[in-house]
Amino acid sequence: MSQRVTSGPAGVSAGQVAGLLGGKVIGDAATLLSGFSALADAGPGELSFFSNPRYESQLASTRAAAVLVGAEHPVLTNRGVAQVVVANPDAALGALVQQFAPPAERPPVGIHPSAVIADGALIGENVAIGPFVVIGSGAKIGAGTAIHAHVVIGSGATVGRDCLIWPQVTIRERCTVGSRVILHPGVVIGSDGFGYAPVDGRHMKIPQVGNVVVEDDVEIGANTTVDRARFGTTRIGAGTKIDNLVQIAHNVQVGAHCLIVAQAGIAGSTKLADRVVLGGQSGLAGHIEIGEGVMVAGQSGVSKNQPAGAILRGSPAIDHELAKQLDVNLRRLARGGGELRVIRDLTDRIAALERRLESLATADPL
Amino acid sequence: MSQRVTSGPAGVSAGQVAGLLGGKVIGDAATLLSGFSALADAGPGELSFFSNPRYESQLASTRAAAVLVGAEHPVLTNRGVAQVVVANPDAALGALVQQFAPPAERPPVGIHPSAVIADGALIGENVAIGPFVVIGSGAKIGAGTAIHAHVVIGSGATVGRDCLIWPQVTIRERCTVGSRVILHPGVVIGSDGFGYAPVDGRHMKIPQVGNVVVEDDVEIGANTTVDRARFGTTRIGAGTKIDNLVQIAHNVQVGAHCLIVAQAGIAGSTKLADRVVLGGQSGLAGHIEIGEGVMVAGQSGVSKNQPAGAILRGSPAIDHELAKQLDVNLRRLARGGGELRVIRDLTDRIAALERRLESLATADPL
Amino acid sequence: MSQRVTSGPAGVSAGQVAGLLGGKVIGDAATLLSGFSALADAGPGELSFFSNPRYESQLASTRAAAVLVGAEHPVLTNRGVAQVVVANPDAALGALVQQFAPPAERPPVGIHPSAVIADGALIGENVAIGPFVVIGSGAKIGAGTAIHAHVVIGSGATVGRDCLIWPQVTIRERCTVGSRVILHPGVVIGSDGFGYAPVDGRHMKIPQVGNVVVEDDVEIGANTTVDRARFGTTRIGAGTKIDNLVQIAHNVQVGAHCLIVAQAGIAGSTKLADRVVLGGQSGLAGHIEIGEGVMVAGQSGVSKNQPAGAILRGSPAIDHELAKQLDVNLRRLARGGGELRVIRDLTDRIAALERRLESLATADPL
Repeated sequence: MSQRVTSGPAGVSAGQVAGLLGGKVIGDAATLLSGFSALADAGPGELSFFSNPRYESQLASTRAAAVLVGAEHPVLTNRGVAQVVVANPDAALGALVQQFAPPAERPPVGIHPSAVIADGALIGENVAIGPFVVIGSGAKIGAGTAIHAHVVIGSGATVGRDCLIWPQVTIRERCTVGSRVILHPGVVIGSDGFGYAPVDGRHMKIPQVGNVVVEDDVEIGANTTVDRARFGTTRIGAGTKIDNLVQIAHNVQVGAHCLIVAQAGIAGSTKLADRVVLGGQSGLAGHIEIGEGVMVAGQSGVSKNQPAGAILRGSPAIDHELAKQLDVNLRRLARGGGELRVIRDLTDRIAALERRLESLATADPL
Repeated sequence: MSQRVTSGPAGVSAGQVAGLLGGKVIGDAATLLSGFSALADAGPGELSFFSNPRYESQLASTRAAAVLVGAEHPVLTNRGVAQVVVANPDAALGALVQQFAPPAERPPVGIHPSAVIADGALIGENVAIGPFVVIGSGAKIGAGTAIHAHVVIGSGATVGRDCLIWPQVTIRERCTVGSRVILHPGVVIGSDGFGYAPVDGRHMKIPQVGNVVVEDDVEIGANTTVDRARFGTTRIGAGTKIDNLVQIAHNVQVGAHCLIVAQAGIAGSTKLADRVVLGGQSGLAGHIEIGEGVMVAGQSGVSKNQPAGAILRGSPAIDHELAKQLDVNLRRLARGGGELRVIRDLTDRIAALERRLESLATADPL
Repeated sequence: MSQRVTSGPAGVSAGQVAGLLGGKVIGDAATLLSGFSALADAGPGELSFFSNPRYESQLASTRAAAVLVGAEHPVLTNRGVAQVVVANPDAALGALVQQFAPPAERPPVGIHPSAVIADGALIGENVAIGPFVVIGSGAKIGAGTAIHAHVVIGSGATVGRDCLIWPQVTIRERCTVGSRVILHPGVVIGSDGFGYAPVDGRHMKIPQVGNVVVEDDVEIGANTTVDRARFGTTRIGAGTKIDNLVQIAHNVQVGAHCLIVAQAGIAGSTKLADRVVLGGQSGLAGHIEIGEGVMVAGQSGVSKNQPAGAILRGSPAIDHELAKQLDVNLRRLARGGGELRVIRDLTDRIAALERRLESLATADPL
């Protein structure tokens, strides 16, 4: 039932795979491999991989012919499964798949006759433009970029080289997308920021006349939205990866090589340094600064500046070690609290002391 | 002002409605009904319905001519409103509306001349394909399916029979959608999972070469995203209903007949058994297993495996009964805590004991 | 590097700007201004603005030639920067930008030849319809409205005058959009509500035959979804502004002049009075009523009716002042609690009293 990559390394041996990846084989290097599959799904003749310790039981029972691993696993040796040992199994797998897997779908090079390209748009060499794409005047598309069906690119927008733009994406006017950027279906780049001024009890729209700059090697997930700046630029730094359904508000500055997981939101004008990680459904308040390498757990809410390296959890977010203690203490609190029993016990002992002292005083001859 | 279904059961009597639904009439079975409406909106001659006890006051004041109910309501009898009593008013209403209401909009059967259908795509009988639809090579569309304007279906994708695909949906290459599936506008099926390996301080993309399988009778809400598996399959089980703006990450396995409310998110590789219910804005961490019938309250966050039948609330989520106690104790804690007053009182009593004992000791002749 | 509005008030003097805005100049009214920019980005000859106190340090160091402000700032006078003092800098800025900034992109007036407009659709005067737009039978588009590429409008839907509909928007059949409404890319109006009845262990779909009414002067952010009513109408009140990725469920009634920040969600049948403010990622349960002017902080969850003017935070949400105290007390709880130390101290004192009393009793001659 499970889907397999049929155009995998058919006829490739475990030894050849190890050679390709700079790894070594433990077991039979001549084992022939006909495809890739997950540990639980792999069948005879297939190559699988192991990097997440959660799946150790699947490692012990896999029917794969060979497994890509980070260190030797005797359980495989005992069962006669070949091991291709590499330094970073995830990276090795990526490299291998990139070499053998079916490439992502792309329109053929050229411009589909149904596309509407404004006069004065500059289309680079070897660009692939699918059906019903609309490109505005003065827009520039870099060489080698593929634009799927139903993408709309506004006037004066720029897309770099070797990008992959999936269907239904909107890039609004004057926004800039770097090179090797991937935008998944439904992404919106450059929608108006959410800015109003109260005038006579109504919300007067403050025009959002800035733009968005998405730097090189960024990937943005399906239906994620990035608002244009009120003035200036909303910026997504080079190499940053953003998941699905994320909200990036106007004037946000995201550093380089950040990871922003699905459904996270960043409010207006907040600045992230490089290598920040935001968990799923987390939120950052507006107008704050998040230091380099800060990690925010899923569903957390950060409303204050954070120094580099901070690890945060909770809403409002606190240091993650403190959050762990809080969880423990909250569970005690939910159950009525150890403190309550101690207090009852202390109260009993005090009452006994009072009674005893009373009787002493009464009995005292003085 | 309120919108009404004008093509309702015009000229149909309460008795005829009861006959149709296998119910009975209390009151005048000859009452003629000209349309449906909500309790608060219904006018003379209209049929309304009552199932949610929150709206009991609306039941008492409705101007409807007849009301579909689950049990007799004397308040209606007193006011001369006919009652159509059925076992399950929600289901009866659905059946009735399905019979009389305007059917959802569909393109006419046939292929709109503007659609771009690749050679080798297989289009079943009585399929309706709207303007600007794009279907890739090797894709298969089952008989009776309707595909609205601006839908993009990738090469090798499969859509079953009698589906309804609303505008702006993207189904990427090699994904499979079952029969009688409804996909609302903006749904994305098969976007790349969020997977990277750290290499030299950068995030190297791990190709996502799996697919998505959406089984029969699934409904997926507007702008919801379902990522394709890294390997293998992301699966949505038969009969499961998913609301708007939900995120389903790569390799997630959702069981049959689950309900996933708006803006919920499920991280990668997590498995849901059948009949799981996730509240709005709730989140499930990755690589966990959720047992049959588990219910998760809105905004909750679950990070551990859960046994069948668990009912959870909070972030991190705990048993819902415990969560109720925690709410009570947190409100006390917010107010300074009953414990604090008790402690102050105990401290005063101890100080008094100490003073008294001191004076006793001083006075003591020994 | 930062994007500037080049078609700003070139050659306009600070005095002319003040005259336009009904403000006064402090400093050299003859200062010539060539563009707008944010405080940190502004260069010589540019006009900037200051309204958020967080940016006071940027005010002190800006290289702008003049700054729009709400009150006199000596720091600017000392540095020779002209000040244009107005009552409401945000509103003044908006008015100024609206006058000088590049207008938002629009298709040219007329109907693009690729658009598919059903017979019987009524298109008003000076309407601008972009490529690949699809408009159903019986739909009406008001005068002056601009509809960007790839918008789909269902049969019988109505759009008022002077609206701006960005690309990839879907407005389903029989929904109504007022005048001067702005819908950002990917908005879905009128998708089916999430309604099922349990029948034999399956979820039977309850047809959603109502519609959505979006009143005048509403703005709705990118990829936001508004479900149609089961019966009757889901309503967004006049002047309300909704941010990106927000979920509005079926039968919700949103009042006038509300602000709903990104990724907030409102469950079915809930009613908001006028001027309600919902923070980002906040959630409202279904079937509740939210009074006029209620403010809900980001990530909060409200599950009960709220009186007018309530200010709420937390999940479950409580009064915001109480929430502040709770935060303080939770931080203490996380650290083990001041109470715990007090209790240990009290326990020591009681034990000492008991020992002392014991020795007294033993020693007592009685």
